[in-house]
Amino acid sequence: MSTPGLMMDVPLTTSHLLWRMRAVHPDARVSTVTDASGACRTTTFGAVAERVERLAAALADLGVGAGTRVGSFAWNTQEHLECYYAVMGMGAVLHTINLRLHEDTIAYTVEHARDEVILLDASLAERFLPVLARVRGVRHVVVIGALPDGVEVPDALDYDALLASAGPFTWPELDERSAASLCYTSGTTGHPKGVLYSHRSIVLHALAMAGTDAYGISGRDRVLSIVPMFHAMGWGLPFVCAVAGADLVMPASHLQPGPVSRVVDEQGVTWSCGVPTVWMDVLRHADETAQAGGPPVTLATLRTVISGGTQVPETLMRAYEERFGVDLVQGWGMTEIFPGATLSMDQGAADPERWSHRGAAGRVSPLYELRITGEDGTALPADGTEVGEVEVRGPAVAGAYFAPEVDTADRFHDGWLRTGDVGTLDRHGWLRITDRSKDAIKSGGEWISSVDLEAELMAHDAVREAAVVGRPDPRWSERPFAYVVADAPVTVDELRDFLAARVARWWVPDGYAFVEAIPRTSTGKFDKKVLRARL
Amino acid sequence: MSTPGLMMDVPLTTSHLLWRMRAVHPDARVSTVTDASGACRTTTFGAVAERVERLAAALADLGVGAGTRVGSFAWNTQEHLECYYAVMGMGAVLHTINLRLHEDTIAYTVEHARDEVILLDASLAERFLPVLARVRGVRHVVVIGALPDGVEVPDALDYDALLASAGPFTWPELDERSAASLCYTSGTTGHPKGVLYSHRSIVLHALAMAGTDAYGISGRDRVLSIVPMFHAMGWGLPFVCAVAGADLVMPASHLQPGPVSRVVDEQGVTWSCGVPTVWMDVLRHADETAQAGGPPVTLATLRTVISGGTQVPETLMRAYEERFGVDLVQGWGMTEIFPGATLSMDQGAADPERWSHRGAAGRVSPLYELRITGEDGTALPADGTEVGEVEVRGPAVAGAYFAPEVDTADRFHDGWLRTGDVGTLDRHGWLRITDRSKDAIKSGGEWISSVDLEAELMAHDAVREAAVVGRPDPRWSERPFAYVVADAPVTVDELRDFLAARVARWWVPDGYAFVEAIPRTSTGKFDKKVLRARL
Repeated sequence: MSTPGLMMDVPLTTSHLLWRMRAVHPDARVSTVTDASGACRTTTFGAVAERVERLAAALADLGVGAGTRVGSFAWNTQEHLECYYAVMGMGAVLHTINLRLHEDTIAYTVEHARDEVILLDASLAERFLPVLARVRGVRHVVVIGALPDGVEVPDALDYDALLASAGPFTWPELDERSAASLCYTSGTTGHPKGVLYSHRSIVLHALAMAGTDAYGISGRDRVLSIVPMFHAMGWGLPFVCAVAGADLVMPASHLQPGPVSRVVDEQGVTWSCGVPTVWMDVLRHADETAQAGGPPVTLATLRTVISGGTQVPETLMRAYEERFGVDLVQGWGMTEIFPGATLSMDQGAADPERWSHRGAAGRVSPLYELRITGEDGTALPADGTEVGEVEVRGPAVAGAYFAPEVDTADRFHDGWLRTGDVGTLDRHGWLRITDRSKDAIKSGGEWISSVDLEAELMAHDAVREAAVVGRPDPRWSERPFAYVVADAPVTVDELRDFLAARVARWWVPDGYAFVEAIPRTSTGKFDKKVLRARL
Repeated sequence: MSTPGLMMDVPLTTSHLLWRMRAVHPDARVSTVTDASGACRTTTFGAVAERVERLAAALADLGVGAGTRVGSFAWNTQEHLECYYAVMGMGAVLHTINLRLHEDTIAYTVEHARDEVILLDASLAERFLPVLARVRGVRHVVVIGALPDGVEVPDALDYDALLASAGPFTWPELDERSAASLCYTSGTTGHPKGVLYSHRSIVLHALAMAGTDAYGISGRDRVLSIVPMFHAMGWGLPFVCAVAGADLVMPASHLQPGPVSRVVDEQGVTWSCGVPTVWMDVLRHADETAQAGGPPVTLATLRTVISGGTQVPETLMRAYEERFGVDLVQGWGMTEIFPGATLSMDQGAADPERWSHRGAAGRVSPLYELRITGEDGTALPADGTEVGEVEVRGPAVAGAYFAPEVDTADRFHDGWLRTGDVGTLDRHGWLRITDRSKDAIKSGGEWISSVDLEAELMAHDAVREAAVVGRPDPRWSERPFAYVVADAPVTVDELRDFLAARVARWWVPDGYAFVEAIPRTSTGKFDKKVLRARL
């Protein structure tokens, strides 16, 4: 029996979350860190909601309408939060540009997304100008904040001036399946691929993560949003905090351990997140500060940190528990499935498998279904032993890429997304990743494409073949290591310089080995398993 | 820009929650109280999920298919939980029959719903037999448990026998907007009206209530589900507990304060709910037990109780906090909007308005939007002062009644549900009900229809006019009081006996006044405001 119209057909859109900011939590605070001392400028959800409406009106005046792609190239700030709600709420699509990519790749994503307007953090203008010089289609650049001396952005519009002159705006009623935002995976092979998030998926993810056993954020929390807002919607925090009415502390570019520690202690941060390296650095900074007799890092108010993007070392989790009383919790996700698809929330001292559970990728979160499949694609038993590829489905999981030109059919299987991760699932929904995506290298929580590096290396005259694999690294989790078959004399330094001109600096491999030949699998592909085993 | 197929189109259905019970929380426990000592029989979510599948197969064998209405007439038990998931998951519709209604009304709802199969708690068979004798269309009665001696249900099927012989079942993929369940409001006027819940609304409500600042239930909770499962889906607890993996303790018919207290203490209950009278009784029982030198009622494990259905007295909330360290939290909802649309979760000692907030109906929960409208239907400012009718909208709010034969257009207004409640909303989303639905009487959390009582009274030969209003009552919140204009000599006892044969016993007014005339408003309606003021 269908229920035509019996329950209200109210769509799940970010506009509802904006309504909560305005009508339920207008006094929740948004603080943006202004300098390395950890000082902040602070406003409220109510004021942000009012500015969001002005921004939407201003963008509409610039011709932004339903489906228009608007790029943001910005740190985590109050204004980036405003961009989120304005662009999505008006039915346009926010492309959160990953500023850590190489400028070639950034230009590729801006072109691929067909961004018409760019919302540009003034402090990043210099980095964006070379991109701007080579893309077509960008009609307007709106600069947020004051440009550094000597930096000019041609025909730029000023963000605050636009807001000041904007009129009122009437929010459209959107289809919950319409696109809200666009995020490119930094990819394991070839060009980045876009994931186009629907309003529905964003709201459902935020609701699931607002759960007691998920992020567990309440209206009394002060959340330091360290994860870049260009990574999988900032792990959903801009939305979860609107659901819960939690304060948001935005670090802008001040992501170094000193400022982060000071912000936590001075702003009374209770909840944070981020890749493990950030929290390793904070720990080391606390030690160094203590040794130098500086003001102690206490993290006294901090309760929970969700970490992920790569395996979180148990030593790190134990150190945070013992020294600071902080639950450093592991989570697992992907751009394609949002973060937190599994979370290893602490089950408490009563759990006999406590540290084993905390070392797992986590337990399946609401709205997600997981399974493990064998080589032949059949589902394996969830017995904690059988190892296979992790597949996931749910209403917040991508069912296709925003890349019709690329054949990605092999990433999907019978209605499930193939994650490329390999692991076990037990009968209580605990996922363990035993092997990460076969070829990709994950360094400091960011993917490095081994295939791209290989292609660049092989572009060097002296290189015949090159294979790049991840070498375990205590700090970055993995760093790229290159096996090179040379045709002519070449030095490691020459290869480094050659790559540095072609890829992001942090992609350049740390280690090199010259070999006679690259081992190959039966199907003729590089046998990276063998190469990794050599390290 | 639409996202055809870019995010997976996975529907929000109760089957996903059943998947969680089986694949994530198979060891969570379901305990059903078996006698007044508080003793329980206990099983697990995993075992329940297996039985749910058998029940679905058995019901399919009985001809239950998509849209078939299946009635349940049962206390809160493990088996009622199984009925929930089996009937809804197979695409049929569970009509949770309100066993507290008068048998005429019950028969009306069974007929109106067109129930084809009844799942009948054996302990309630005697109560159901008169209903069964007068309804057409019921093809099968499945009796859960052993019938009392001397009670016979013609052609009854045995629940456990059906399960034992059932084969496997393949769950269909359902449209999330398809009907899952049907609940009749006990109504303020005339016949009860059905609310047909969609899968989508049930899952969204459960997700919202699983939030940290909503029910706040975690996987470590043991939840005593006191609210009848025929009241607005048992306040969503059968679903929230599947989201969170919390244990469920089902009281069956053992709702008296002695068993409830013992169950809390012996089963380690951490979270419960229910109308205020239940918890007033527990408090009084604790006093009496202490005075009698019996084993003390400690409620040591209990942390949170959500109460509602009527205003929760502040003295009761303070008593639970001071004596037991329990947060007795007020919530507000309706059959049409689910419970918990607002919740006055404790904001902690730092909240200067703490007790004022706890005395409010609550703060707007995620997925709900509220507004206050004036007599002319315009929205009033949410300033905490302007009084108007409370209107609500959201994806878990009824947009129409399952009663096409009744004109209910006046209950909806411009896409919002008119709740009939009158109150204020402040700029932080706190709702205060200043005047409950103008005419209805709420006694012990149940609606009594004043209009029905008036109609019955006026059916007496000696009565010319009658108006019934609620008189404040410390125990029941309100009790009906009748003003009668008599044409001929009649006694209060005669009126009592006359009504007792026609309405549920607890509907019979406690107080009566014979008057010369009923005051009327300018439009000629009874002026109940004046009558209430006289009390």
